[in-house]
Amino acid sequence: MDIEKVNSMDFGEFVDVFGNVIERCPLIAAAVWSKRPFSGLGDLEKHFFAFIDGLPLSGQEGVLRCHPELAGRQLPWGRLTAESQREQSAAGLQNLGAAERLRFTELTAQYRTRFGFPFVLALRLSDPAAAPRELARRLRCPPAQELRTALGEVKKICHLRLANLLGEQP
Amino acid sequence: MDIEKVNSMDFGEFVDVFGNVIERCPLIAAAVWSKRPFSGLGDLEKHFFAFIDGLPLSGQEGVLRCHPELAGRQLPWGRLTAESQREQSAAGLQNLGAAERLRFTELTAQYRTRFGFPFVLALRLSDPAAAPRELARRLRCPPAQELRTALGEVKKICHLRLANLLGEQP
Repeated sequence: MDIEKVNSMDFGEFVDVFGNVIERCPLIAAAVWSKRPFSGLGDLEKHFFAFIDGLPLSGQEGVLRCHPELAGRQLPWGRLTAESQREQSAAGLQNLGAAERLRFTELTAQYRTRFGFPFVLALRLSDPAAAPRELARRLRCPPAQELRTALGEVKKICHLRLANLLGEQP
Repeated sequence: MDIEKVNSMDFGEFVDVFGNVIERCPLIAAAVWSKRPFSGLGDLEKHFFAFIDGLPLSGQEGVLRCHPELAGRQLPWGRLTAESQREQSAAGLQNLGAAERLRFTELTAQYRTRFGFPFVLALRLSDPAAAPRELARRLRCPPAQELRTALGEVKKICHLRLANLLGEQP
């Protein structure tokens, strides 16, 4: 899909196609449509990022809370969005052994309690084996810093999903 | 459900229950969770309304664009959220005659083109027969005024859905 095609979309098509580049936040794609025309992938994603950066703190936390728990029990596989399911499958998180999975689940619960949002990680950019280590590291970060880190992961995921939709190299 | 139950919810439960009181905008419920505890229905809805009012123009348009077209062909029935389907059914819009439906569809298309968002109406507060007349009237309003009117309808729908969930009289 080239950028002329994107610029020709009405808001219904645009939200259908881009509504989940920020997980479960079609509102953001629907808002970004106001900023068309777009000159390319970089310009398009700039508007997604600017919208997130312009949200109040509660809204930024809200974006994170729309993400599924990684390898979590709360969101059964069937309820993951297609994008998340592909990304989690590719990362091999469903292949964690029972003990590793239990430990990972304990740490994600601690993370959720500490920060008030789920652990978000751009899995396609990570070594699967590194996810538990990264989780343990981020669990110890100060909340304001961790919010910035987590939103950075949301933006990486957004970039990858947009590049995928536009058929470009990330 | 009483307000103590609401205040005891973790963000996952809260978004599951309240994620669609603003149509297809779980981000807003996820943000409102940051404002707990809530003293009651009025306090809870105040935070939903304040979040919408605090959005930039593109975000307010985005909220509207997440709503389905009334009696529309773009969103087939199966894709409506459960809440929208109930509200549209109750309003009898699916019972429009062929000619009325065609006329209604033409006007909603004009509305969409003029304002860049779909026609939103709190159907449960309207006489079904009045919807086409109200659409024709609002189609002639200045865009800034119509945005305010449409967001007012979003808030009425939010109020009705919240009252329904809390088991209170709207």
